[in-house]
Formats: sequence, C-alpha cells, structure tokens
Amino acid sequence: MQRIAFGTVMAAMLVAGGSALAQAPSWTPPPESTRCPSKWGATDERGSANHMKPQTVLNAVKLIKTGEVIELGHVLNDKMPFFGTRRFDVHIKRTFMNDFSNRRGSNEEIVISEIGQVGTQFDGFAHQTHENSWYNCFKVAENSSRSGFTKLGVHNVGSLITRGVLIDVAGFKGVEMLGDNYEITVEDLEGALKKQNLTLQAGDAVLINTGWGKLYGKDNPRYVKSCPGIGVKAAEWLVAKDPMLLGADNWPVEVAPNPDKQISLPVHQIALVVNGVHLLENLKLDELAAKGVSEFAFIMQPLKIQGGTGSTVAPVAVR
Amino acid sequence: MQRIAFGTVMAAMLVAGGSALAQAPSWTPPPESTRCPSKWGATDERGSANHMKPQTVLNAVKLIKTGEVIELGHVLNDKMPFFGTRRFDVHIKRTFMNDFSNRRGSNEEIVISEIGQVGTQFDGFAHQTHENSWYNCFKVAENSSRSGFTKLGVHNVGSLITRGVLIDVAGFKGVEMLGDNYEITVEDLEGALKKQNLTLQAGDAVLINTGWGKLYGKDNPRYVKSCPGIGVKAAEWLVAKDPMLLGADNWPVEVAPNPDKQISLPVHQIALVVNGVHLLENLKLDELAAKGVSEFAFIMQPLKIQGGTGSTVAPVAVR
Amino acid sequence: MQRIAFGTVMAAMLVAGGSALAQAPSWTPPPESTRCPSKWGATDERGSANHMKPQTVLNAVKLIKTGEVIELGHVLNDKMPFFGTRRFDVHIKRTFMNDFSNRRGSNEEIVISEIGQVGTQFDGFAHQTHENSWYNCFKVAENSSRSGFTKLGVHNVGSLITRGVLIDVAGFKGVEMLGDNYEITVEDLEGALKKQNLTLQAGDAVLINTGWGKLYGKDNPRYVKSCPGIGVKAAEWLVAKDPMLLGADNWPVEVAPNPDKQISLPVHQIALVVNGVHLLENLKLDELAAKGVSEFAFIMQPLKIQGGTGSTVAPVAVR
Amino acid sequence: MQRIAFGTVMAAMLVAGGSALAQAPSWTPPPESTRCPSKWGATDERGSANHMKPQTVLNAVKLIKTGEVIELGHVLNDKMPFFGTRRFDVHIKRTFMNDFSNRRGSNEEIVISEIGQVGTQFDGFAHQTHENSWYNCFKVAENSSRSGFTKLGVHNVGSLITRGVLIDVAGFKGVEMLGDNYEITVEDLEGALKKQNLTLQAGDAVLINTGWGKLYGKDNPRYVKSCPGIGVKAAEWLVAKDPMLLGADNWPVEVAPNPDKQISLPVHQIALVVNGVHLLENLKLDELAAKGVSEFAFIMQPLKIQGGTGSTVAPVAVR
Repeated sequence: MQRIAFGTVMAAMLVAGGSALAQAPSWTPPPESTRCPSKWGATDERGSANHMKPQTVLNAVKLIKTGEVIELGHVLNDKMPFFGTRRFDVHIKRTFMNDFSNRRGSNEEIVISEIGQVGTQFDGFAHQTHENSWYNCFKVAENSSRSGFTKLGVHNVGSLITRGVLIDVAGFKGVEMLGDNYEITVEDLEGALKKQNLTLQAGDAVLINTGWGKLYGKDNPRYVKSCPGIGVKAAEWLVAKDPMLLGADNWPVEVAPNPDKQISLPVHQIALVVNGVHLLENLKLDELAAKGVSEFAFIMQPLKIQGGTGSTVAPVAVR
Repeated sequence: MQRIAFGTVMAAMLVAGGSALAQAPSWTPPPESTRCPSKWGATDERGSANHMKPQTVLNAVKLIKTGEVIELGHVLNDKMPFFGTRRFDVHIKRTFMNDFSNRRGSNEEIVISEIGQVGTQFDGFAHQTHENSWYNCFKVAENSSRSGFTKLGVHNVGSLITRGVLIDVAGFKGVEMLGDNYEITVEDLEGALKKQNLTLQAGDAVLINTGWGKLYGKDNPRYVKSCPGIGVKAAEWLVAKDPMLLGADNWPVEVAPNPDKQISLPVHQIALVVNGVHLLENLKLDELAAKGVSEFAFIMQPLKIQGGTGSTVAPVAVR
Repeated sequence: MQRIAFGTVMAAMLVAGGSALAQAPSWTPPPESTRCPSKWGATDERGSANHMKPQTVLNAVKLIKTGEVIELGHVLNDKMPFFGTRRFDVHIKRTFMNDFSNRRGSNEEIVISEIGQVGTQFDGFAHQTHENSWYNCFKVAENSSRSGFTKLGVHNVGSLITRGVLIDVAGFKGVEMLGDNYEITVEDLEGALKKQNLTLQAGDAVLINTGWGKLYGKDNPRYVKSCPGIGVKAAEWLVAKDPMLLGADNWPVEVAPNPDKQISLPVHQIALVVNGVHLLENLKLDELAAKGVSEFAFIMQPLKIQGGTGSTVAPVAVR
Repeated sequence: MQRIAFGTVMAAMLVAGGSALAQAPSWTPPPESTRCPSKWGATDERGSANHMKPQTVLNAVKLIKTGEVIELGHVLNDKMPFFGTRRFDVHIKRTFMNDFSNRRGSNEEIVISEIGQVGTQFDGFAHQTHENSWYNCFKVAENSSRSGFTKLGVHNVGSLITRGVLIDVAGFKGVEMLGDNYEITVEDLEGALKKQNLTLQAGDAVLINTGWGKLYGKDNPRYVKSCPGIGVKAAEWLVAKDPMLLGADNWPVEVAPNPDKQISLPVHQIALVVNGVHLLENLKLDELAAKGVSEFAFIMQPLKIQGGTGSTVAPVAVR
C-alpha cells in the first residue's frame, strides 16, 4: 500500500549532509500570479485545444496527398505496460441467446480500466496539479466529485485535427532507440528539425520519436522503469512554439526520472499546468519514422468522458 | 436475473391456438452456405471496413471546404440511456501528491463499463450471431476466451475516414421526431435522398436522422423502450449499396421492436452477421440535421480493444 | 454529479430569516480534547471490538440451548436497496473447460461493488469522520492511500462472538413497522427491554427491530428515502451501556433524516467517531422478532479487507 | 489470451509414441447414472451443507472450553497469491463531506474482485463441472445467466458451525512444510489422526495442514506454481467419512499438478461434482498447528452472493 506523501527529498538531502544550504532544484513551478489567468482567458478550460479552428483543419487536410493512413495507437489489452496497479481488464460476458425465430446471439464485455491513463493515452488538464492548483488556477478541492471533476474534464476537448509533425530525434542521433534515461535537448530538436527540413507552427501536434516504443509490449518492466525524453529546457522551447500538443513514443513524453532528482516529471507541469498544452503518450511511431514521414494530417478523437482526466486514444497520421 | 433462453415464441403461438400451421416469420437468416464465405474472402474479419483505401480517404477529404467540425458523439456519463444493467461508472481516485520539490499532484479515475456498448457506439462483428455463427461463419465457441474473442475483434477496424451521408428521414416526413415505433421504408429513404439531391456510393458512412436522439439523456426510459428506425426491407436496400456502415440517432439503427414480433433485431443480423456491415448507434445528429448537411467527411476512431465486440466512439462530420 | 460540499444549512437558515441569531443545532460533535484519547488507549484502532475476550465467547455460547441458527443477513444481489450509485454487480465469466481427460469445467464471476457498504453491512471506523478526524483522533489525510486506509481498517476486527440482544421496539409499540421517520427514544428502549425482561450488558451486540426491514427488496425507494431509528438521546443511552455494536433492520441504525435538519446522521458520529462503537445495518430481523427471541449468541465475520471502511456480512443468531 | 480448450493430452501422448493404446488415466469421473441423484435428494442444491442441523451446532459448541478464537483466514489485499488474472482491487473513493453543522465526512471504496475465488476461499458447487454437468447433475447451460447461476448458488449455504478437525500431516511427517508436489496418502492421514488421537465424524470440517501456507504472501509465484495436497485416494477416503467440507492451507486442497498428468484437479470433481462436498482453500493454519489444536468448533460465514460460485471467507476455530 502506498502512502500519499513520499517523504521530502529536501529533508533527505539535509540528512545526507553536504553543504549547510541544500542545492536548489533546477526548476520550480511558477507562482499562480505568473501563470494565471491563461492567455486563453480567465475561465478557459480548453488550453491548447483552442487552436482547433476551421483553418487549422483546412491546413491539416492540405497535407493529405495520397490518402494513406498510418495508425499511431497501440492495441489495448492486458499485455500493455502499466504503472502501479493500473489495469485494462476485459471480461467477456456469457453469450445471450435471444430465442426468437431468428435466434440472435449477443456478446459484450465489461471493461475495467483507468481508461484515461492506459495504452496510447491523451492527458487532459485535470490530470496534474501544482499543489492544489490546476491549469488556469482552477482548484481541485472545489471542483471534485466522486464521479468526475467539474472543471477541465476531457469531454471538453473534442476531435483534434491539425498539422502533425514528427521530430525523429532517434533518427537524428543515428540510433534505433535513445538511451534509457537520455535527456533530449533543444539542440537535439533543432538538429532534427533542420535535418528533416521542418519548421514548427503554432497549433501543431508535435510528436517526438525516441525509439523507446520499441520496448512497448516487449519488455514492459524496462519500458516503465525509466525512459528517454524531453527535458525541461526542450519542453519550454517547444511550448514557446505554441503547439496543440506534445507527444512521444514513451510513457511521459519527458525524460524519466528527471536528471534533477529533486523534481518529479516537471514537463507534466510545464505542459499541462503552467501552459495548458496537452500531452500524448505511448504513441506507436515506428511506422511513421520508418517511412520517413515528417509532416502529416494528425487526427485524434478522445472519448468524451465527462469530468475525466484523459482518454486512451487511437490517433492516426494521414498523408 | 435473466435466463439465457427466453422461451420460444413459436411454441407460444401454437399454444395460443390459431391455424395448425403458425405463420412463418417475415424474415429468416439465410443459411451459412448462402452467406459464407464473405465477398471479402474466406478468412476476412474486417467486412465493410475493407472499403478503407487511400482513395476513400481522398474522396472524403475532397468534401472538406470550410474546415467546420461537427461532433456526432454524446458525452459519456451515467446519465446516458442504458440497456439492462450496462454501466458507465467513473470513480475518481484520491489525489496522489508526489512530494518532490515541485509538489506535483496526480489525478486519475477507474472506469467500469461495457465500453463497447454504451454511449455513441460502434458495433463490431463479434457482437452478434445467428445461432453460434458470426460474420463469415466464424464460430463463437472456437474463438472465445474470457478476455477477448480471437476472431473479429474491434481492434481490427482502425480509423474510418470516408464520405458521410445524412439521410434526414424525419426532415423528409416534416417532423422533428418519427413515431415511437415507426418503420422507415425504402420509399422513405428514396424520398429523402431525392429531396436532398443525394446519391449513395459504395463505402459511404450512411447516417439516418430519425429525430429520436432528441430523447437521449432527456427521457431515457422512452428512448430505450422502443424506437423508429429502418426495417428489414430498407436495411436490405441500404446494404445493397455496399456502405461502410449504417448509423442512426437511436439505439439499434433499426425499428424496435420489429413489427414482426417473431423476430428480434433482424437488421443487426442482416448488417453484422450476413453482410459484414458495421452499425453505429446513439449518434448525435441534431446539429448536422439543423445545419442541413447532407454530405461530409466522416471520421471515426474506435478504440483498439483486442477481441472486443465494439467501441464507444466520438465521431465527427467535417465539411 | 454531486459536489463535495452541500452548502451550509446554517447560511440557509440565516437567509430564511427568523431570529437574528440562528438556532443552535441540537447536537454538536464534542471537541477532540474530550473524546481522545479513546478509553481503549491512545493507539487503539479496535474500539468496541476490544470487548472480544475469551469470556465474552463463553458467555455467548452459554446461551446456545437448541443449536438453532437464525440467519440475520440478506442475500446479495442487484435487487438490494442502494444509496446513490453504489453497486453489487456480478458478471459470470464464460465457462473455462480444462480439456484434460477428466474434462473439468470451471466457473467464476467478477464482482464489482462497494462491498463494505452494501447489503447487510458492518461499519468500520474508517467510514466516518468529524472534519478530518476519525475515532481516536486519527487523521484521514495522513492515513490514506488509493488502495486502503492505513489506520482503522476493517481487517482489524475479526470474528465477533458475543451475547446478542434484540430490542423489539416495533413489537413494544404494537406495530409491524414503525413510522417512516419515527425517532426511537430512551423510553421506547427501556419499555421494550422491560417488556422483554431483558437487561443490557457490556459487550452486547444490541440489535433493534424497527420493522423497516419489511421494505427491503420490496419497496427500495421508500426504504432508502427515510427510516425510523434511534435518535441522539437513545444512541447516547445505548453507548453508555458499553456495547460491542448497535444494529438495526434499517440502513443507518438511526432515524433518518434526523429531526434536527441541521445535523446529518449524528448517531454515526456518536457511535463510530466519538465512542468507537461499531454499527450494523440492513439486518434481516423478521424471523428473530417473529420467534420472540430476545437473547442469543451473536456471530459475525467481517471480511478482512485491508484498510477497508466496512464489510458486507452474513451474521447469525444461535440459540 | 487463453483459449478455452487446452489441447488434448491424449493426442499428445499418442504423438509421443509408445504403445498403440495410450495409458488410461488413473481416474475418470463416474457417469451421471452413478453419481445422480445425490444421496441428499434429486433436487438437492446444498450437498454436504445439509449436515448443518441443530445437533451439529450443539456438538460443535460442546468443544468450546476457554473461548479462545483462532483466526483461520488471511487478510484480503493485492499482495495475495492470485491465479491468472484474478484481482482484489480496492479503490478508496474521495472523501465526501456532508456539510451540515456536524461536518460529517464519509469514506468508502469500490472493490473489484473475483470475490468467490480469492483469499481464503470457500468453493460452492456452481464452481466446477464434469463436461456440462454440476453436482446432482444440474446442467450449466440451462441454469446460467450473466449475473448469476440459477442453481447451486453459494447464497444457499449459510453459516456453517460444526466440529472442526485439523489433520496435521506436515507435523506427522516431522516437517514445517511438505514437498512442492507431495501427494498426501491415506496412510498419511491415518497416521496423523492416530498420532493426534483423533477420529473423523460425519459432518466434520476437515482441515489439513500441509505447511504450504507458509509461502502465502511471501513467495506467491512458488505458492501457486504447484503444491502438496491430498491425492485421489486420500480424497475418496475422506469423502467416505461424510464430512461437511475439506480444507487446507494451499490453493486447491489437493496435490497440484496431479501426479497423473492426464487429469486436472480431480479432487475438485470428486468433492464438488461427484459427492457435493465443499472445499475450503488458502486457510491460515499456522497458529492452529503451532498450538497443537486437533479438535475445535469451526465457524464460517460465506457471503450470500446470489448465484455465486463461492465466497471469500474469514473462518475461525474456537475452543
């Protein structure tokens, strides 16, 4: 059974000795006064999804030349990598025979899962906080219920159709898979974009290929133990480009654990809490990378789970 | 508690008296020798989804002029109409505070649901049988497990992007909502298509507006008790047009109960079992109908539930 | 969706007008300094279950004369009365055939339920608080996890075998069932005990027959809407007798709603929070009352759900 | 994903070669004509629980001398050994504050589990078949529903209070724990009973100490991989003594896998299907054995899960 509070790392550092003044963490969440209200408005709940406008769709669709569809989502089953006690349990019910003259048998299943947080998954803004405060400074305590949050629910997102961009960092570094805890830097991103002759635009779905997805369903313990991904600097650089979302073929998009052991998944806060930028995890990018696709129409339909923190998704790249 | 076997209606009719020879049902599932193998091939599991080809996507995308996106799916919550004991239960977990220096709180929820069969839902082929036989004559007994079917799973479907067509039957009849048990006929479909200056093409996502969706979440008992929808003749007529799927703003697409009390949801068998044509239920068509949209790019992403019978979905019409 | 905070009734009263000084509630939870530490000790988590000693068992067993066993628990199914969105959902899995020469088929089911709070149910101390404080002033925030509480879990209780006493208040009042919102008073209890020639002893399982159980599974909406039961005074009187538990054939043991509209289920706090006395709800007492049983061996085995708030149970009276 | 049918071992043996006639299995389920109707009656659903009579209770209670209660059940949590994908998942809900003047906080949890088949568990008769046939030849197909079986449900059992007997086979063999796949023989049982100066009586709860329980929650993979237990001969010998149930501190009571690789858990069929004798698994017998207890009052209260295949339980030995 896990306790709610880990234990303060700061205290641990003091106990461990060293300088009388413990080293400050390399990144701290900005105060509410700085990050709120959101640039999208004081009552905004949609953050970067606000980029969805008719013109966004038209720009995406312009990129469709052959009609080829490349699936970016993994199949959902109990062989997926899971964190902690998360599940994707399917129980097929007994067949029900409607004994009319047409003898119609009916099958269905009950699914039990943290369906907002398994498989290829899209993070909504209710998922993460700084202290008790969400994106746009909505407060958890005042907006919670046992059956759903009353602010920032993923049901607000809707279909996202926009220009998609694959930044193939693994390809840029000439490897199939980046190192187990490799931090992707701004230089890596700039280098890859240059090599791919690609520029980021506001509203993009920016997908990053680390190669880590190669382990998905193959070596789950290693897949979840750590991963390569963007660090704080790279995240801030990307967020400044005003994307619709950041995604990767690893479980947190960012490098994990963070090289700075004092902070836990800071990019989740930079994206979701501070800037209202969505994250998309556990993508299947092997085909996209193998085919050398850099730019495409990105289409993703999160489930409209009322008050949910996220949704498993089955997005595609179309070109 | 429901028994697996209802009780034979035929027997009931005999007991009730009448002619020595009970009236034959108006429709009978064709024998396996007639319907198998599928035109898509003896080992085919994808049926009408086989219409998904690059050209299908290009044809759909051609219809996008303004980039307007119209959502066709309902929000998922426990206020939806449910059949029997189906659920959509969301339990928000207690917030977990990662007590690092960046004090990152994390939220998620456990969802318990027949997620293939609730809300705006897409029926896969494992969902329905004639006796023990599915589409393309795969047998249930040999292809079942407790955690998923090993043939015809909805994970095989993938994104569907095709020309969408709204046949506004309610509009054609000059009503907001068709009658509680009104059977849509071939004449209704032809009349509406003519009025809308519309022709069906192979591979279409054919959506039918009955107006019944008006009751969804407003008067659930009435919504599920019965509904207007296509009858056997209309279904056979539509299926002959070789669509990718048939959908409606009611719970079974077809009229329910069927006017012929001896048969139970025959169109489910005609579409899913006999012809391998997908069904899409509980659509939200009010906006599409109100805006007089007849033709559009239809986009739908079912979850890749391995071995699943279907998926709740959040499809869109784009134009 | 329900908000966490109802809205202050006090404020409502002020708005409603009346005297400048709103009437004080008829009962207020005592301050922590008064109720803690528990008489059972500063680190005690078992409260009234501490009455379980070998002598308690011997005293109970002495009452067994004929060996007759009377079941006091209801059958568990989805026809039970439920509060809010609580469930008792059973999904029978598909039969699994172990295809060895002995062809052994295996059946099981997945059960999804608030199993600590449905059916005939036993309340543990983690179930209720005053503000953030439990029995013996353990604090919720410091002792919570997503998978169980780390103090006061029902797994600590163990089997309870003690003298059971049925106070037939409905019988005493000469009715089959007390009124929908009747408050049982100290006089009612004293009168019934006198009529039954019964005296309460420390460590007793005190069960109260209201007759309300007659509605269980028959008229669930009425059963849960309100109920007769003990009021604050009667509860304090009973608690002073130092029982092992208080039980009844209604859903909260106490009268609900409380006649004082400012307070919500105060007896739950008096018993569970203030005094560490267990509650036992939804008992099936019809047979016990009909047979005129006043005194018996009471046996109850709560499930050892680690960190759980309670357990459904199937207790018996043996005589 | 597991197939329903393993694959015929007989066929495997033929492939493996050897004599043209494969060796017959050492035990075969008797034909229906032999085992049905049950000695308890053609419509009987309760099997060995029929031993519960007032005299049984009195005989059990006579054995209570000091009032000492020894718990025989394990705590329920997710650290228990599980078979396959079975679960015991507890999700503590967010605390709900009833914001009345008494500020009453309420906690509860949703539990998702094969609650008939986890932890210290009691097997009902719906749990196992020979082909499609249960105890007393009730047929699965005719008595199934998605929410419960309509024959042989565990809700029929009720509290079992009877003479309990611990046969300490590990103690008899002078070891703490029998071998990983040791088959307990009739000689073992007779020897232990003789050493303990104990005779079996009809209606007994016969509990066997193998010592295997020592691994429970400590080395779960080894615990479930195999285990010592009674073989077919010992089971038949025990069943002939007409017990109320057979129990052990391992997961199937019987030796597993069976030395005869052609048969799968035959004692489950001998007990549950052929003779209608209940099984009780995963008992915690260390304290009972350490205290040298041979004879005691056995008390067990299965949950009344309507139509269920079994129940987790928290039984006790009282002496």
